[in-house]
Amino acid sequence: MYLIGIDGGGSTVRVAVTDEMLTILGQARAGGVNPNTVGRDHAARTIKETLSAALTLASIRADEVHAVGAGIAGAMTASFHDWLTEILRDMLPLAQIHITTDMEIALIAAHGERHGVIVSAGTGSAAFGVNDQGEALLVGGWGYLLGDEGSGAWIGLQALKHIAHASDRGQPSILAERVFDLLQIREARDLVPIIYQPGVLAAPRLARFAPLVLELADKDDAAQEIVKSGAAHLAELVNVLAERLKMDNPAICFGGGLLSGANPLSSALQARLGLDVFPVSVYPAEIGAVIYAMGQST
Amino acid sequence: MYLIGIDGGGSTVRVAVTDEMLTILGQARAGGVNPNTVGRDHAARTIKETLSAALTLASIRADEVHAVGAGIAGAMTASFHDWLTEILRDMLPLAQIHITTDMEIALIAAHGERHGVIVSAGTGSAAFGVNDQGEALLVGGWGYLLGDEGSGAWIGLQALKHIAHASDRGQPSILAERVFDLLQIREARDLVPIIYQPGVLAAPRLARFAPLVLELADKDDAAQEIVKSGAAHLAELVNVLAERLKMDNPAICFGGGLLSGANPLSSALQARLGLDVFPVSVYPAEIGAVIYAMGQST
Repeated sequence: MYLIGIDGGGSTVRVAVTDEMLTILGQARAGGVNPNTVGRDHAARTIKETLSAALTLASIRADEVHAVGAGIAGAMTASFHDWLTEILRDMLPLAQIHITTDMEIALIAAHGERHGVIVSAGTGSAAFGVNDQGEALLVGGWGYLLGDEGSGAWIGLQALKHIAHASDRGQPSILAERVFDLLQIREARDLVPIIYQPGVLAAPRLARFAPLVLELADKDDAAQEIVKSGAAHLAELVNVLAERLKMDNPAICFGGGLLSGANPLSSALQARLGLDVFPVSVYPAEIGAVIYAMGQST
Repeated sequence: MYLIGIDGGGSTVRVAVTDEMLTILGQARAGGVNPNTVGRDHAARTIKETLSAALTLASIRADEVHAVGAGIAGAMTASFHDWLTEILRDMLPLAQIHITTDMEIALIAAHGERHGVIVSAGTGSAAFGVNDQGEALLVGGWGYLLGDEGSGAWIGLQALKHIAHASDRGQPSILAERVFDLLQIREARDLVPIIYQPGVLAAPRLARFAPLVLELADKDDAAQEIVKSGAAHLAELVNVLAERLKMDNPAICFGGGLLSGANPLSSALQARLGLDVFPVSVYPAEIGAVIYAMGQST
């Protein structure tokens, strides 16, 4: 029995072809497939090409696939669900198709089962959990304008706000100097036309300042304060989730680019959540999608 | 001697033709002329048409105008300055041309002279001051992503953040119910595709929720907290300005749509700044531009 898992994150799609023992037979990856950001035609083409490549690498024919699981970033509307189902049906005529969110497959990948909590910080941030009764809840994930505290976009935005604030007060700022160097500008007011220029996605543009903030966290008070506050917000997502799902001492895993390795943010979050061991995922997210498909298939 | 004043705000341009006693002989207004938002061709056409209309209404020929003053919203780059000068030179061949920011002419209009402090909250927010030595300083005015605390866009954004936050916690919210009614949506997650849809300017889109927050300020704790915090931020702009310009007990005036009449925000700011009388402007802003031109002309 052959299975396919698709992890459609904001900036990357990953596809794995496996057998029922989760042995990876073929694997492929390409750019983002969120139709809201790259457009539906582009997203459909990318999904099809990545699927084809993974099947070829696995030496499996499309009609041999029993089930496909896909976890996709972004708002999951009915129209979006139908659109993706049609693309996958077209490619895999005999397969059962199971679509869910990227947070759900990340949770399953993290723990090896649909249970526990995952807190994720990449360009955006969110926490997702499933309790013993199978009740699921997502908190956060509101995007850079409404929330996403502790994410890359949020950290970048806090850095720029700090720079504007310091400029109003005529105060020196290491963070400001480094951002000016990066953007090749001379003063804080020069940020304005850059940040508000249309046609460039604001969240990734803001998130590009996050690595600088993490790098300065042990040298600059403002950077340290941002990281500390970001970790507190991420911990709060976990606490709200655990409280609402009535989970005592849940198994917690980290996800997303900013929490997938040790850095000042992930370390601060680990400490704040009282985790003895840095919580790494059991499987990659696309295997989470395979496990999801196996659990849903008949 | 005839003079022209132009107030080029974010959403409206106002033109006045006066004599040297500031008697208004003709007046006209039209939509916004910020070339960054409406494009240069559109902005140039609007400026020319509004100028022509005001001259016709005043029964004054263009070559009779001695000087023109213009205060324009938005980043004042050299290229922008040259562009506007050319448009005005074309229309008013014999007039001296003096261009500055909308905040400077608002200050002059507010106090009848280039001295004192103005704090403004409309779609955005900023404070501008000039001390006894003629030193000028602008604080705030960073736009809705980097700052603009207390502005319409900021108030709207805080309302949406509150809604997201309350939704994460499963808490009821009057503010949320009212915003859902306004947008004809059913739940907080429905906000996401609306708020992030491209091609619509984010700041005016956010500012449309501000009147609702002001309306609810005496009925809903969340709305009241936003208004209180907005007033505190606006007062802080004034305090930073006064401190950096070494102005003791400066004359303060309010500007912008949210502070031009009594409402919970302007009243809270008045109280916080300890102003006995609600500070209204002496002149409309376009007359501030005329006074600016008179002061600069030879």
